[in-house]
Amino acid sequence: MAKMNAFYAQSGGVTAVINASACGVIETCRKHKDKIGKVYAGRNGIIGALTEDLIDTSKESAKAIAALRYAPAGAFGSCRYKLKSLEQNKREYERLIEVFKAHNIGYFFYNGGGDSADTCWKVSQLAEKMGYPIKAIHVPKTVDNDLPITDCCPGFGSVAKYIAIATREASFDVASMAKTSTKVFVLEVMGRHAGWIAAAGGMAVDNEHNIPIVILFPEVEFNQEKFLAAVKEKVEKFGYCTVVVSEGCHYPDGKFLAEAGTRDAFGHAQLGGAAPVVANMIKEALGYKYHWAVADYLQRAARHIASKTDVDQAYAVGKAAVEFALKGYNSVMPTIVRVSDKPYKWKIGMAQLKDVANKEKMMPRSFITADGFGITPKCRAYLSGLIKGEDYPPYKDGLPNYVRLKNVAVPKKLKDDFQL
Amino acid sequence: MAKMNAFYAQSGGVTAVINASACGVIETCRKHKDKIGKVYAGRNGIIGALTEDLIDTSKESAKAIAALRYAPAGAFGSCRYKLKSLEQNKREYERLIEVFKAHNIGYFFYNGGGDSADTCWKVSQLAEKMGYPIKAIHVPKTVDNDLPITDCCPGFGSVAKYIAIATREASFDVASMAKTSTKVFVLEVMGRHAGWIAAAGGMAVDNEHNIPIVILFPEVEFNQEKFLAAVKEKVEKFGYCTVVVSEGCHYPDGKFLAEAGTRDAFGHAQLGGAAPVVANMIKEALGYKYHWAVADYLQRAARHIASKTDVDQAYAVGKAAVEFALKGYNSVMPTIVRVSDKPYKWKIGMAQLKDVANKEKMMPRSFITADGFGITPKCRAYLSGLIKGEDYPPYKDGLPNYVRLKNVAVPKKLKDDFQL
Repeated sequence: MAKMNAFYAQSGGVTAVINASACGVIETCRKHKDKIGKVYAGRNGIIGALTEDLIDTSKESAKAIAALRYAPAGAFGSCRYKLKSLEQNKREYERLIEVFKAHNIGYFFYNGGGDSADTCWKVSQLAEKMGYPIKAIHVPKTVDNDLPITDCCPGFGSVAKYIAIATREASFDVASMAKTSTKVFVLEVMGRHAGWIAAAGGMAVDNEHNIPIVILFPEVEFNQEKFLAAVKEKVEKFGYCTVVVSEGCHYPDGKFLAEAGTRDAFGHAQLGGAAPVVANMIKEALGYKYHWAVADYLQRAARHIASKTDVDQAYAVGKAAVEFALKGYNSVMPTIVRVSDKPYKWKIGMAQLKDVANKEKMMPRSFITADGFGITPKCRAYLSGLIKGEDYPPYKDGLPNYVRLKNVAVPKKLKDDFQL
Repeated sequence: MAKMNAFYAQSGGVTAVINASACGVIETCRKHKDKIGKVYAGRNGIIGALTEDLIDTSKESAKAIAALRYAPAGAFGSCRYKLKSLEQNKREYERLIEVFKAHNIGYFFYNGGGDSADTCWKVSQLAEKMGYPIKAIHVPKTVDNDLPITDCCPGFGSVAKYIAIATREASFDVASMAKTSTKVFVLEVMGRHAGWIAAAGGMAVDNEHNIPIVILFPEVEFNQEKFLAAVKEKVEKFGYCTVVVSEGCHYPDGKFLAEAGTRDAFGHAQLGGAAPVVANMIKEALGYKYHWAVADYLQRAARHIASKTDVDQAYAVGKAAVEFALKGYNSVMPTIVRVSDKPYKWKIGMAQLKDVANKEKMMPRSFITADGFGITPKCRAYLSGLIKGEDYPPYKDGLPNYVRLKNVAVPKKLKDDFQL
């Protein structure tokens, strides 16, 4: 096989470690210059491929690529753009193949969650049909931790670590203030469908840090009466209480807490988050003074406190993707395989994309305590390894010195523009 | 003078480094066992003194006291309890002196902001009048950075660092997403009266990180038209924009943005923060997709990313307080004196409490750009040294291992209870 170029793109919501995967992909390709030509990155994800807006990563120094390991968010830009089915919009897939052909691209590394696994799978199918020799490998990434087969998803461990630390730190704060002031602190975390991130709040507790925490999971239908009773019990026992609420927490009828009443001056709903709703509910019913925080992007961008396990795994799946392609695999995804809980050990495995695409992995009910407000020892055993280790970025003048790439465009070869 | 005991208390909103000051006070007292007996801490601040609820810090190991340097929040509990004036409630001050007498306390170290400086001053005045020999020293602390005379306040540097980092990280995130999704990220920060913390968001920008940021200060009356124009200009130029809004941002009539319209299902105001109000305003007027975060306690509890300068200064003011007392000073406060900007150098100075009490230091207008939405080079020069250096806490199982003290109570000696 003649030497072909590689294409790499970042998809969907970015994470603190998706660039570590990019680093793994690019560094490994550079180690195999006899087999792989240049690595082109899609500017703003798959849109960069559709519009032939490619970035020539060979213009970046080895130092700059190595520094990707420490930089949060998507160095080449990401996008929320789901390709339609082959039947609905075959033209998009054909366009991808055209661009790949024009730039002699034989490797397609797509770094994303469930949707992008599906896209990656379809690209490999179509390429096969069209007789174009491409190796399509999906590189897993999502803070939602909802990809099947893999034990965990790169990106999640760092969010989990951030939320566990934030919960512990803020709990110390409210404990200090509770005698005369704030008694309840509410922290809203991401996770619209699954409570993986909310569960991480429970990790703030250990034998030496006995912190009263009530967690509101999307998996457990919200019951206001039971919730308020749980908070009251904690405050009466400990003097304070921390509530970790998932943005996906909802009433039995499916209505999100976040939609449960906040209105702006014009009467528009959906202004607030779940945290202020929950905090206010507590104030109304129990009279406790509260504070609330919404972590939002801070949690998934917090490279300054990324989990070393997560960074290592993100790099490893990037590296493995290239190695799989070089071994001739197609339409697969590197996975994290758990070898042991204690000590936490893992290795790289492989999943077929047909088994990954369009499947969501929910949190097992056995990870949530019977009362619905906490995590079980089984959940702790699962999360424990994922948040382990620190991997501090370099600092300059008191701030993390996150690399910015040059992102030089590859000259276009196709004549026609593509309308998204 | 016979050997007397010392009393130490934490006051008001806690910080990531107030325990470093406690560490400085206690370790320095322990070095002078020939002159100072035990250090008693007030459980929940000054309330502990009024109710004779004292903690015997001599029951804590040297290791535990040393570990205070790394632990956020108030290890002995703090309180929001402002003593009234001597005229209004002389009984409270007399009670303090009674408790001090009963426990042979000759040193009063009060760790707080403006209100506690005032209390400390009054205690020293009354003690003098009552002929009771106490050295009252105020140990400065406040994330608001609003104490006069001192160049900065321990606690502020770490919040500033946290906000600068969070702003940089979240800006990277939104920059990655902006092509197809979020274009504006709004971060709400503390600071009801002064914009010191909001200003720190501007530090996310440097020569290598050109990030479009619009800051909303409490010092600048909110002008919706100008603000929206500033955001629009940034988004059109950079593709995205980050907004840092102070909780104290308000309209010309003094009404806070946070009160400007959010209502819960029952019609109660004050549910939301400023961030969702600002985000929604942008969506309504410009149509940009947004995300918003409210950092709240996370910013002041974030010991995991404290500024080393701040930790060092917090420890130093605690140490200096004891040294001042031993030298016979009374009614004073150690200050931070800036020696040079570049490189940042500082030393400990001394202020008279009569000059500190009840004075707020506002941010100079010269620190804010003419358009009211950014920080000037003068502000950068001021903030730069304060966020310098990292001082990571020890970790265990992926989480900061923050010390919890035993907080053993000192047996009561007075017969009567004191009603607050």
